[in-house]
This record gives sequence, structure tokens and C-alpha cells, in this order.
Amino acid sequence: VLAPRDIVRLEDAGIVLLDQTLLPGARVERTCASVDELIDAIRELAIRGAPALGVAGAMGVALAAATGPDEPAALRAYVANQAGRLADARPTAVNLRWGVEQALTVVEGAWRTAPELRGRLAGLAARIHADEVARCRAMGRHGAARLADGARIVTQCNTGALATGGYGSALGVVRALHEAGRAPHVWVPETRPLLQGARLTAWELAEDGIAHTLVTDNAVGALFAEGAVDAVLVGADRIAANGDAANKIGTYPLAVLARHHDVPFYVVAPSTTIDSDTPDGAGIVVEQRARAEVAGFGGVVTAPAATPCRNDAFDVTPAALITGIVTEDGVHEAPYVFVPASA
Amino acid sequence: VLAPRDIVRLEDAGIVLLDQTLLPGARVERTCASVDELIDAIRELAIRGAPALGVAGAMGVALAAATGPDEPAALRAYVANQAGRLADARPTAVNLRWGVEQALTVVEGAWRTAPELRGRLAGLAARIHADEVARCRAMGRHGAARLADGARIVTQCNTGALATGGYGSALGVVRALHEAGRAPHVWVPETRPLLQGARLTAWELAEDGIAHTLVTDNAVGALFAEGAVDAVLVGADRIAANGDAANKIGTYPLAVLARHHDVPFYVVAPSTTIDSDTPDGAGIVVEQRARAEVAGFGGVVTAPAATPCRNDAFDVTPAALITGIVTEDGVHEAPYVFVPASA
Repeated sequence: VLAPRDIVRLEDAGIVLLDQTLLPGARVERTCASVDELIDAIRELAIRGAPALGVAGAMGVALAAATGPDEPAALRAYVANQAGRLADARPTAVNLRWGVEQALTVVEGAWRTAPELRGRLAGLAARIHADEVARCRAMGRHGAARLADGARIVTQCNTGALATGGYGSALGVVRALHEAGRAPHVWVPETRPLLQGARLTAWELAEDGIAHTLVTDNAVGALFAEGAVDAVLVGADRIAANGDAANKIGTYPLAVLARHHDVPFYVVAPSTTIDSDTPDGAGIVVEQRARAEVAGFGGVVTAPAATPCRNDAFDVTPAALITGIVTEDGVHEAPYVFVPASA
Repeated sequence: VLAPRDIVRLEDAGIVLLDQTLLPGARVERTCASVDELIDAIRELAIRGAPALGVAGAMGVALAAATGPDEPAALRAYVANQAGRLADARPTAVNLRWGVEQALTVVEGAWRTAPELRGRLAGLAARIHADEVARCRAMGRHGAARLADGARIVTQCNTGALATGGYGSALGVVRALHEAGRAPHVWVPETRPLLQGARLTAWELAEDGIAHTLVTDNAVGALFAEGAVDAVLVGADRIAANGDAANKIGTYPLAVLARHHDVPFYVVAPSTTIDSDTPDGAGIVVEQRARAEVAGFGGVVTAPAATPCRNDAFDVTPAALITGIVTEDGVHEAPYVFVPASA
């Protein structure tokens, strides 16, 4: 079982994270000694998952402060610049920007010396990390209450401890069922192109001894058709004010299949994933990733060189297909009206 | 452009086929000098696609006769035994058994000498091959008449020349549109686990200069959602009497997406794919393939060793989701009632 500090932590040498690109073959820690190295790690998906990126965002600002000049005005300017670049490292996950902005309110607030700022930012990052895990446990309780014993659950991508900094969002619900002896079984789609299902979700479930079966993304339809799916539980990278939810590419077809088969479809995500400034899914920017991810598989080139590829990292599931959105506050149901916390 | 004899042909040395497991990286011919070697090639998918397997089935019986004893009664018994094993090499594709049985009617008919039987079987196999390609061209015409210029088509797996012995079924419709200057664009799902979309369909389309874009299987839903799909065209490995159609795993979700988005969904398959002895999809045996296909690709292991996998080769799309079934005879529409040719 992974502890939160096994996934990501702030040390004097930098941000130490479990390199998720090397799982399940090898468990290797990677140290990011600068914001640039953290941005590289985020772009390469060495750390990924919306809630975990929120933690990384706050830690990244703390790292910027730790590596910046000691003179307060210069430090403030340096950190603000680094933070802006960090927040843009991945466009779809709202949590990354949220974590950065939480830390920036400290930077922009009252402090007098560099050590004071550095200490406060490190403390904030630790608190955000602990809060994120606590939110996961709350989501786990709320979600589990909606599911029957022995539920056969389809998920997508990885929404476990690795994605959230500890415990998990959609996979946190599975963990809550498992901890209560309620015997969930998880159908794990491998989640091309980067196979977070096969590499990360299957690994987490195997480590915890939770029943699961790996399938290709293509095979999920047949599972619905044979009546072998009781619920779909997915995470989210950004939820608009009306409940439209962006998540890993391949989530939307699961929602359509669930509706066709009258199976409940839940989005499980902390409130930090809600972007109430975006009215609906049409306003969510979907990250486009490299051709090579589609044209190959684990270093093996699979497509002709002349073949164009398209590689959307996410798709958007409309609120109308979502049975409920599970946050740490409970299970929200349609009509979804998420308003800014300040409203 | 591939000629039918480039895909599979009967020579004195055996059955020579283009090894589809090595595409697109290498274009290598493989010679099967015995029925056992042909069965291996079929199981490894060096030759695959329901119509092409029909051709291979007939050629395989001819090969059995060529390699059997000269004494007529012994030859008859030898060929019947070999043919039975060949017909069972893959359980879902009805065409393989059909091709074998066509040839067995010759074996069981009137002939006097081994050379006479061998000549007749070789002639039959050549005729079946030519007929299969002619059926593809007829399907191409019928299907193309249903589509608009510039149609944006989603397909699945490979239904091209490689799958049929020449031209193609669903991809034959695309070829017919292209030859008529009607500018189709094909969205090609890579088709895990064996990536026939990426490796074979993209290769055929690139060779012929037909516009296409490769995507992961997960990405097709987003294309529907953005209104970028005008039609779905897929093949079939077996069509039941009521129109339920077994095809490559991942086809059924495309049918559900098409229905949700009110996009036409066509099955394109020669009449040799129709199994009127099977009343509906519940009677179709779905081949289960090896765990290793799901747990990795091209020698790269992607899943933990402790993770169970399930690997259905096909799924069944119910007739109710099929807009039309295109055969060489025209476009059939619901209610589908396919009766035996002898009825």
C-alpha cells in the first residue's frame, strides 16, 4: 500500500516523486530540483492525475521559492514568473492551476523574509496534500454508499493513490468498498494511448489485493452487453459549472454505453476539480498530445510513417449522461449548478 | 496497390501468403507447405479476415489433397480429416468453414484419380478467390451509393484487401468512393489488442493515397461528439439469420455511439459471412484469445503479472443497431431474415 509521501513529497533537494512512467516494471523515485524539471516531469506524466497535480502545483511554488533569490522583491517576482509557467504545463487539469494559485496567495500576502515565505509555502503544500487525501476518503464513503456489495465496476485510466497523492477518487470508492469487505470487482480498461489502466490501476489493485480484470478499451462494450457492469466510476480533470466533465479520452463512450444499458455513471472528483468559471464543457480546452503516443506502443512503432494521427488527451462527458458527481461534500445530482466558492 | 495473388495464392510448394503479423514494418511472404502450417498461420493471424479465411479454407483443402496419398480411398479419408481440423482453426469466422465445405463437396463428389481431384480443388480455390474479390467490388458499389461525397467514415479493424483476398468489404466501399473521386476520409481506430487498424488499415489507405487519420480506440467517442462522423462501416465475421453480427471486439460500442448520435451504421460483408443456421447472436461462439495480447504488445509487457485479463476476439452487434447490411446483392435493411441458400 502506497503512503502519500511515496507518491510525491517536498525535500531539501527538490520534489521527489514516484516516476509513474516506469510502473509497473520498476518503482523508481525521480527528484525535480527545479521548476523546469517539475514541468518536464508533469509533461511526461511522471506525475499525473488532476488532484495529484494540485499537490504538485503547490509544491512547485514552494520549490520555486526555495531556489529563488533571498531579496524579497526579487524573490516575489521570481516565484510569480515560475508559477505562471508551471500552471500552464498541462492545460486541461484545473487542479494544477488551483494548487499554484493557492500558493500564490501566500506569495502575494504579507511576509518579510525569504525563509519565512519558504516555510509557509512548504507548510501550505503539506496541508494541501493532506487535505487532498482526506477529500479522497470522504469521496470514498459517499460513493460506496451508492453501490451494492459485489458491485462490478468499470473505471477508466488511473484515479487511485497515484493520481490523487493518496487513496484515490473513483478508485478511492473501490478502496472504501474493499476495506468494508464489500467485495468489489473492477473491470480495468487498459486506457490507450498511455495505458494508465494496465500500468497503474491494475498495479494498485494487485498491490492491494482487490479483485480486477484487465481488458482492452474495445472490450468494455461486450461487458455491458452481457450484463456484467453494475456501475461506471471515473475521475475528472475539470468539471464545468453545469456538470460537464472532462476526463481521460475514452470516458465519454463509457457514459454513452452506460446510458444505453441503464447503468449508473458516476464522476468522482474533489471540489478542487470543479471550475465554476467555465460555464460548460464547450469552454474546456482539451490538450492535444504527441503523434508518437498513437503511432506506437511501448517503443514499438505500429503505424505507417505516412499516416496522420490525432491524439486528444481528454473528452468531455455532458452532464446529462452523469448520474451523480461525487465530491468530498456528497453526491451531487442534476441539475448541476456549481458556483464559485466566493459567490 | 495489392493484387489478390499478393495476399494469398496456391503454388506447388504450398500456400503462399503475405504475413500480416509483420506489417507495416516488413512485407514478407510465408509459405505453408502443409495444413498444419496453414492452421498455425491462421491462429497467429498471419492471414485473417473472414472472407480471406474462406479463400484460405478452400486452398487448404487443395493443399491437403496435394500432400496426401495417391490411392483414391486413402486420399479421400486423408483430405476429410485434414479439412475437419482446418475448419476448426478459428471458431467465429463462418467463412473458413464455408470455404472448407465448398471444397469438401468436390472431395465427396465423383472423381477417379488423385491428379483429377487435385486439379479440380485448385481450380475451385482459384474460382472462390476470384468470386470473393468480385463480391467486394459489388459491395463497394452498393455501399458507396448510400454515402455522400466527402463522407467521414469510422471503421474498425481491417476489412481491406488483406482481409478479403482483394479490394475489401467495408474498406471496399471506401475504395469505391475514392476511385469515383468522391473524397472519403477514414477515421481509423487502432483496434487493440492486435492493432489491425494501425498496422493494416492505415497501411492499405496510405498505399492507396486515401485520406485517413489514426486514433486510439478510446478517441472515437469524441469524434462523434464533435459531429465529425457521417457513417460507420464495419465488416463481419459471422452474421446470424436475424441480422445480429459478430465482428472484431470494439464494434458494438461503435454501434451504440452511432445510435446515440443518429449516425448510420453499416455492416459490409459478403453473403458467405451469413450463417443462416444460427438464429441470432446468442448462438455465435466468441473466440477467446491469449492473455498476453492484452497484457502487452510487441514483446513489451504492460500489465502486472498478478493481473487477470479477458480477451474476447469479437463482440456481437444486435440487428436493431444496424442501419443496413451490405452484401454483393445490395443493401439489406431490417427486419433481417436470412434463410439458407437451399431453402
